[in-house]
Amino acid sequence: MPPEQVFDWLDAEANRRADAGLTRRLRPRPASSTELDFAGNDYLGLARDKRVAGAAAAAALRWGAGSTGSRLVTGSTELHAELEHELARFCGFQAALVFSSGFTANLGAVTALSGAESAIVTDKYIHASLIEGCRLSRAGIAAVAHNDVAAIKHALATRRTARALVVTDSVFSVDGDLAPLNDLSTVCREHGAALLVDDAHGFGVLGEGGRGAVHAAGLAGEPDVVMTLTLSKSLGTQGGAVLGPRRVIKHLVDTARSFIFDTGLAPSSAAAALAALGALKSEPDLPARVLSNAARLSEQLSDAGFRVTQPEAAVISVQAPSPEDAVAWAAGCAEQGVRVGCFRPPSVPDGISRLRLTVRADLSESDVDTAVKVISSSAPPRAATS
Amino acid sequence: MPPEQVFDWLDAEANRRADAGLTRRLRPRPASSTELDFAGNDYLGLARDKRVAGAAAAAALRWGAGSTGSRLVTGSTELHAELEHELARFCGFQAALVFSSGFTANLGAVTALSGAESAIVTDKYIHASLIEGCRLSRAGIAAVAHNDVAAIKHALATRRTARALVVTDSVFSVDGDLAPLNDLSTVCREHGAALLVDDAHGFGVLGEGGRGAVHAAGLAGEPDVVMTLTLSKSLGTQGGAVLGPRRVIKHLVDTARSFIFDTGLAPSSAAAALAALGALKSEPDLPARVLSNAARLSEQLSDAGFRVTQPEAAVISVQAPSPEDAVAWAAGCAEQGVRVGCFRPPSVPDGISRLRLTVRADLSESDVDTAVKVISSSAPPRAATS
Ligand SMILES: Cc1ncc(COP(=O)(O)O)c(C=O)c1O
Ligand SMILES: Cc1ncc(COP(=O)(O)O)c(C=O)c1O
Repeated sequence: MPPEQVFDWLDAEANRRADAGLTRRLRPRPASSTELDFAGNDYLGLARDKRVAGAAAAAALRWGAGSTGSRLVTGSTELHAELEHELARFCGFQAALVFSSGFTANLGAVTALSGAESAIVTDKYIHASLIEGCRLSRAGIAAVAHNDVAAIKHALATRRTARALVVTDSVFSVDGDLAPLNDLSTVCREHGAALLVDDAHGFGVLGEGGRGAVHAAGLAGEPDVVMTLTLSKSLGTQGGAVLGPRRVIKHLVDTARSFIFDTGLAPSSAAAALAALGALKSEPDLPARVLSNAARLSEQLSDAGFRVTQPEAAVISVQAPSPEDAVAWAAGCAEQGVRVGCFRPPSVPDGISRLRLTVRADLSESDVDTAVKVISSSAPPRAATS
Repeated sequence: MPPEQVFDWLDAEANRRADAGLTRRLRPRPASSTELDFAGNDYLGLARDKRVAGAAAAAALRWGAGSTGSRLVTGSTELHAELEHELARFCGFQAALVFSSGFTANLGAVTALSGAESAIVTDKYIHASLIEGCRLSRAGIAAVAHNDVAAIKHALATRRTARALVVTDSVFSVDGDLAPLNDLSTVCREHGAALLVDDAHGFGVLGEGGRGAVHAAGLAGEPDVVMTLTLSKSLGTQGGAVLGPRRVIKHLVDTARSFIFDTGLAPSSAAAALAALGALKSEPDLPARVLSNAARLSEQLSDAGFRVTQPEAAVISVQAPSPEDAVAWAAGCAEQGVRVGCFRPPSVPDGISRLRLTVRADLSESDVDTAVKVISSSAPPRAATS
């Protein structure tokens, strides 16, 4: 085969995606715009907060633009250690470990806490990074129907290994619905399993002062519970962390491949996360503002007849009739100055294309009302049920 | 089982590691110190360069501390697009795609360019992030002996699938030795396979003006060649990229799960990488300074009787008699003000513990001489052969 043809198969796949309405295009955004953002995950509005961006800037100048190595070599700074200490304390866990992203934190937690001698039982709607962790784990995997505690229980009861790990999102990333953490913890305890909760979309938004869904469920610091979070959503920067019993964190340092074989988080991002955590502590009402904006948005869209999810945190979704409709709908919103997320396969667990809408603490009621108007007026036929 | 005992198995594993001398400890470093760093991967000394750190700081203030979403939603800024353009142009490829880390770039490239209908043939010493990519790929995998082109050829010739991907590091991360890229490209072409090269340790150090090992081999921009790199080594910050034919990059945008389901790189890190690339362009002699420091270090350690690798780029390694010896040796160096990397299983492909030494463009000859003195005087018995 001539070298020019080695990647010809990609063209065939691209054509298939185009026919199915599943082609993506990157749309680089400018530094500032008048667009109303209902698509990003900066739930507390801290990414551009002066304290947070200022801390990132100061840290880049003081520590350099990178951590220069694996956390095990030169990539651990006092900033990383301070961030780990503060995250663990705030969320109520013994210890924490900071990773370069939420994605690598999930890979590390799932793989290091399972293995060939373990079973993993998961909700099939968990985030892709957790799924990749499961695939890498060499564990036997049972992925059960969404939020079906009885199925989790059954899988735990019928497993063939002594060890088991139950893996779930706290707030599912596409629809924003909640996992039944207390029920999951109960079945875990009945069956001697550990519980790993990805609180990416709960941390900063749910629980007392934004301590997250695990804290809200009374599970923080429990000896059989591990929590992961990302620094890229409520904390407005980049990075991830695993929180848990001290022996779990030590185990990750020694064995998690996505920790050992990865460069440490940039000091500027660690500093930004620390500053954002400080801002959250000093403004414990920020999470409530997120929740009230989500409630307002969902209620109005529901009143307008759209198929919208119940707001449990900062995320809601609105079903679209087809992938092409979702793209056109999102484009129509953008034309009218409102940015919304457009989620199509493979980014939707059930194959149904959607608008994914997020709110922030710093949106006003009139911002929400504007978004509702724009979303309604750009809606494709058949999007509303009434 | 009481919840307190769910993680008891971790203590047993910790004891096993302790007995084998394989326990790790994080040593957070301060913002500045007088220690001589022979352990980090900041090969061009740009992490703390004023232009680079200044660009990171300015970008945090202008763009915010995070990109706020997936690259497909709100996480693509004009900075990301500019960085992609500049990386592709500098290295001689049609297009580039920036990821949150070199680790996730490798996951994305390997998985998206293989799949169940493909064979993957790799050198068994490739980086952990590439190995994880292979494991996630669902492809049949042949991992052959280190730098054995005949074995690669045999695996390609005897594969059962039409498609095949050969995966290699350009500069192997532990010993710093080179892959035979031209020979690999030849066997790929004989057998209709694509070639994926991780140039993490070649980019910035090898090739004309630091364009990397792929460029040096005359393979940049070839229609059947894909290159990955990291922004965390020669460019002194965080992040990664995949470079290749335009259709490959488009395919990654549509299908690479570690791209789609991950928050975009922080703007400050993208800006730092751009500034570092600018610095490299304006000082094309930086790579030569790295190579001459590596040659001096290796030669002197070899003269002192140590088992040291040949310097091909910025990395050399020195074998230690045991994991415990490696730890004590590195600790002895640190006590005398020289930081060296201590690599033990699972971070060494052949199970032999080592010191891993790196050099930077901004080290003086006398810095190198100091390091040699300190390494020699801290050496455990049996470390030197003469
Ligand atoms: C539930 C969930 N977990 C993990 C991640 C990964 O985190 P990050 O983007 O910070 O890598 C995300 C989002 O990207 C997410 O939605
Ligand atoms: C060969 C190689 N590839 C990929 C990576 C991963 O890059 P990063 O640390 O930027 O995630 C590294 C180092 O960590 C490496 O040595």
